[in-house]
Amino acid sequence: MPADNDTASTPPDLDRLFHPRTVAVIGASDTPGRPATLNWRRVRDWAARAGGQAIPVNPNRASVDGITTYASIVDVPDEVDVAVLLVNDVDDALRAVAKKGPAFVIVFAAGFAEVGEDGAQRQRELLRLLDGSGVRMLGPNTNMNAFEEFLDLPGKAIALITQSGHQGRPVFQGQELGIRFSHWAPTGNEADLAAADFIRYFADQPGTGAIAAYLEGVHDGAAFRRAAAHAARQGVPIVIVKVGRTAVGRSWAQSHTGHLAGADDVTSAVLRQYGIARVDGLDELLDTAALFARARRPSAPGVCVYSISGGTSAHLADLLTAAGIGLPELAAETQTALREWIPGYLRINNPVDSGGHPVGDWRGRKILDTILADPNVGILVVPITGAFPPMSDKFVADLVAVSETTDKPICVVWGSPSGTEDAYRVALLGSQLPVFRTFGNCVGAIRAYLDYHAFADRIDDLLDPPAGPVRMPAPGAVLNEVASKALLAGYGVPLTRDVLCADADDAVAAAAGFSGPVVLKAVSAAITHKSDLGLVRLGVAGEAAVRETVADFERIVAGQPGAGYEGTLVCEQISGGVETVVGIATDAVFGPVVMFGLGGVAVEVYRDATFRVPPFSRAEAHRMIAEVRGFPLLTGHRGAPPADLEALVDAVMAVQRLAQDGAVTELDINPLVALPDRVVALDALARGVRDA
Amino acid sequence: MPADNDTASTPPDLDRLFHPRTVAVIGASDTPGRPATLNWRRVRDWAARAGGQAIPVNPNRASVDGITTYASIVDVPDEVDVAVLLVNDVDDALRAVAKKGPAFVIVFAAGFAEVGEDGAQRQRELLRLLDGSGVRMLGPNTNMNAFEEFLDLPGKAIALITQSGHQGRPVFQGQELGIRFSHWAPTGNEADLAAADFIRYFADQPGTGAIAAYLEGVHDGAAFRRAAAHAARQGVPIVIVKVGRTAVGRSWAQSHTGHLAGADDVTSAVLRQYGIARVDGLDELLDTAALFARARRPSAPGVCVYSISGGTSAHLADLLTAAGIGLPELAAETQTALREWIPGYLRINNPVDSGGHPVGDWRGRKILDTILADPNVGILVVPITGAFPPMSDKFVADLVAVSETTDKPICVVWGSPSGTEDAYRVALLGSQLPVFRTFGNCVGAIRAYLDYHAFADRIDDLLDPPAGPVRMPAPGAVLNEVASKALLAGYGVPLTRDVLCADADDAVAAAAGFSGPVVLKAVSAAITHKSDLGLVRLGVAGEAAVRETVADFERIVAGQPGAGYEGTLVCEQISGGVETVVGIATDAVFGPVVMFGLGGVAVEVYRDATFRVPPFSRAEAHRMIAEVRGFPLLTGHRGAPPADLEALVDAVMAVQRLAQDGAVTELDINPLVALPDRVVALDALARGVRDA
Repeated sequence: MPADNDTASTPPDLDRLFHPRTVAVIGASDTPGRPATLNWRRVRDWAARAGGQAIPVNPNRASVDGITTYASIVDVPDEVDVAVLLVNDVDDALRAVAKKGPAFVIVFAAGFAEVGEDGAQRQRELLRLLDGSGVRMLGPNTNMNAFEEFLDLPGKAIALITQSGHQGRPVFQGQELGIRFSHWAPTGNEADLAAADFIRYFADQPGTGAIAAYLEGVHDGAAFRRAAAHAARQGVPIVIVKVGRTAVGRSWAQSHTGHLAGADDVTSAVLRQYGIARVDGLDELLDTAALFARARRPSAPGVCVYSISGGTSAHLADLLTAAGIGLPELAAETQTALREWIPGYLRINNPVDSGGHPVGDWRGRKILDTILADPNVGILVVPITGAFPPMSDKFVADLVAVSETTDKPICVVWGSPSGTEDAYRVALLGSQLPVFRTFGNCVGAIRAYLDYHAFADRIDDLLDPPAGPVRMPAPGAVLNEVASKALLAGYGVPLTRDVLCADADDAVAAAAGFSGPVVLKAVSAAITHKSDLGLVRLGVAGEAAVRETVADFERIVAGQPGAGYEGTLVCEQISGGVETVVGIATDAVFGPVVMFGLGGVAVEVYRDATFRVPPFSRAEAHRMIAEVRGFPLLTGHRGAPPADLEALVDAVMAVQRLAQDGAVTELDINPLVALPDRVVALDALARGVRDA
Repeated sequence: MPADNDTASTPPDLDRLFHPRTVAVIGASDTPGRPATLNWRRVRDWAARAGGQAIPVNPNRASVDGITTYASIVDVPDEVDVAVLLVNDVDDALRAVAKKGPAFVIVFAAGFAEVGEDGAQRQRELLRLLDGSGVRMLGPNTNMNAFEEFLDLPGKAIALITQSGHQGRPVFQGQELGIRFSHWAPTGNEADLAAADFIRYFADQPGTGAIAAYLEGVHDGAAFRRAAAHAARQGVPIVIVKVGRTAVGRSWAQSHTGHLAGADDVTSAVLRQYGIARVDGLDELLDTAALFARARRPSAPGVCVYSISGGTSAHLADLLTAAGIGLPELAAETQTALREWIPGYLRINNPVDSGGHPVGDWRGRKILDTILADPNVGILVVPITGAFPPMSDKFVADLVAVSETTDKPICVVWGSPSGTEDAYRVALLGSQLPVFRTFGNCVGAIRAYLDYHAFADRIDDLLDPPAGPVRMPAPGAVLNEVASKALLAGYGVPLTRDVLCADADDAVAAAAGFSGPVVLKAVSAAITHKSDLGLVRLGVAGEAAVRETVADFERIVAGQPGAGYEGTLVCEQISGGVETVVGIATDAVFGPVVMFGLGGVAVEVYRDATFRVPPFSRAEAHRMIAEVRGFPLLTGHRGAPPADLEALVDAVMAVQRLAQDGAVTELDINPLVALPDRVVALDALARGVRDA
């Protein structure tokens, strides 16, 4: 396994943030009814629970709540681990903090990057006040959530990261459902400490079963990727809600915690590349993270549905199958055994429908044991749609008991909308079973769980993200087709045989050198959509046609403002094959990304494209190609010969090298035609990097 | 508004089922511990609540629970409204029922259509026992759910229909959340009475706010459509979970209640055509139906999000926008007013972020009143993500109070996963506010609500479904291209100019009659994919090329087993335009359906097609075309001229007439090329109807 190569910066010693001996609370008060009083007391109690002590700092008090109070943090005699700022005058307080040099300072004050460029400037100034002090800042615009009380619950824990405190609340309240939480990092604007720092730290804690995060944006895409790769190698799954699917969401996210969001489809692809589950709702975040925390690696990918109703079985099996989750036929011996307890008119091949009655007696446990012993079954899903106490109480008791005898995850869906039943609230929530309230969340979580473990199984294939900050090249000039293709040629991307011709005479001579009709194209860097203007002509044959075409081109280009005629390209004509698109884009968060899609309307209308951030392996390039919806077109659609996938992967890997070299900010090979025995780039357009 | 034209059968008088005076319970018992005892007593109590009386029927008892008991239902002196069969020997009991002639008989026994063809045969025999008696049957394989206790709750009610009793339970339990239910029809195998009968009846009840249904299949697609149209005209919305998205789900549904499922994409399209919301989960079924029942027609389609957190606003606004729901900018005067109570650094244009504090005092109500007064706001959505009693209790009290002053729906999302808080359980659930537990369900329900009211606004455009049962023609012979095109010509579908030629000499002569290259095609009814075999050649010019092509064709067809060479078609060559596909399919449930899609990979790989059942209006044909994802290709993609949409609609309407005439079971016009000034069918393949 490759070592983690993050040597760019020393990771913060977050142990001192979460387990401080001394916490200085600047602005602590005991005046009744004041927020500073409330907050001081919460920090004091939290510090005590963490085994440390809180020291009030306030120039106007000799003591606060009976504890000796210092006028300034610099007067505190002990070494301070964490300074908490409850004051409005952040600047003055930070100057004192910089002098004292605690490990961390927590800044609640708002009005920074989230309110626009002025605030972003103030935020940069805050950080400058700490320059050289070694003090790491949490915030600004964070909140008191780090100081919550963590209930002592069994099992592996969820470590929570939220850029918005309020949005973390219903996830953290999962404690009330018996789900263990170990940490909550409310990162706010992330001027310094960011989600990535906490991902790395939480992944190293032995009790962490999953990391759940609510993110409005990612500041440093490279650091985020390194942290994600570290967590992946530590075997700690991550589940994320990432706001920014739409422009409205991105705009609001930016005005809330000052986070810039990159392109949403790139974000989704990067999360997938690092094995991170992306969900839409906070309820899904909690449910999925809880399943991850409680369920070990599945011994088989197959799901078995077991219920007391054929309708429930039909419904859930339908939704699981629609999500691409397989319900394998149970082994013959399993079915034989089940038939002893389940009447012959009920189906038991998977789903298993007990019809109800066997659940109410000793047969209930036998059925569970038998299903769980089947080697095809990796996960058991038990929907209890209708709560009916005489039956469901016994059913739940059996489920809880059997869960203690198996490593296979047993997902229970408690369907009652009220959720006030003892079987749910006492028995199920008191157990370590992953419990869901809806089929949708259960199916989504199982999909994420299977995807994560498929990713974990190929972890050796994950390449180290680059060290240091993401390279964000500034866009330079557009290269014309000839220059773009020359660049590709240097990286070994196969191209059509082209001859650049200065005039019609040259073009006639060049065309004569090809056997058969040729393609003529006008060359002009200022024109990015040649086809739309009629500047690409296929099947041109004979001198007269060549001359006429060149004359047409010259007339069309002359009609385009600012466009110069840079020559005529006489190209080999390729027929057949499947048009694909391979390219490079520069994402605002993750920097250079490689794109693959199918050409024409596939990418333009159906947006059938996907992305990867370099570096990625050859196997990942194969997965990238296979995940577009139009992939069947490459494997022999309607009797066509299959495309040369290895050659296509070669081209994607070549483009990746180009992206890694940082020679361009944009590249669009469109189309790259995939033929049965090779691929060939017919057209390409690149944008260079501006010289610094 | 057109009258409802269902004259095919007299609708059952379901008032007598739901409000019976006399219910005869065959097999009633008072032996302790027996299911028949439990069920008799439930029916007895239910009949009493409904204002009637239950009479036990049992040849082995003189009285049951002190009530005079008759040996047979024929001995019951009173007129019987409903006979309930608790016995296993259904046949004997039904014979007696047929003699007595109650309005309804309810059959719980299972082992009929759901267990396969033998059972289906037994089910048909059951029905035959009632022939001529006028008795209508509910079941078999139904259950006791019709006899539940309905809580006396305020507001419009949900009427519930479920083919599986168990699957209806968590929806009906919505009563525990304060949601009113008026009826529950557990329809089981629907040998006679079906979901459609109950939809029609429930739509006529004045207290019905919405109809919610869990369906595993639809037996009679035509009756279902007539009932749906009737409910639409009565202004009663319908929400459905329909199992059968996958083959696994369809197979299980069939083995549970004996229902055959048609193609799932056809089902979805038909539901949409009749304004029915389709959801995936029972939780969504309850939440969406409850919104429909509680929310009147929106005064504007715009949604305003109001919360105490910018993060919550960002997240929910993102999800709403991603679902295509518009968040209009609030009016200038609204924003001016809100600024009096909300600090300047918080955004209030929509979403409105109060930052929290104003919610805790008199400003909270002012803010709500002000937002609701904005004419751009049709729906207010209030996510309460983090329950924080001092604030959220007051917030909820204001919401409940203000909801009584406005017709605008106010959707509240209570984010706490536990849901044990008084603000939720007492205040919110005690109100008539639509309350959700997740952003996902709230967004989905609002989408369905807006879609429904857009549909309701164009109700005059809904054409009457055909009377009588769905016509299900048996497939006959495949028509070759020439015959298929001749059929289309009769309906006015524009075609290429084609000449059918018997041999090469004819083809040469025909080609000479066209100005320019022609398309040659081999004609052979046995070959349905000519292109794949190389039997379509474009751009053929000159005698030699024509002869060579015909010779090629003959050789290729000779190599296809069972295929005869029926001639060569010499066709006008069409260039440019957008390839579409228009066709007819015969669905197992809904009969003939008209399909529209985009051609080539769009329909083959991206499945970009949609369906409508005849009759549908011209406006509906326009919507059909506009709803495919590739629609932008028809409106001038990348500078291309827009296609002639009216001509395309003409072609769809012509195909609809063909479908209505029942002349074919399948038709595939592929491609129908849409040009800027016309459409033209290049190829067509039809399958005739087998003569009876």
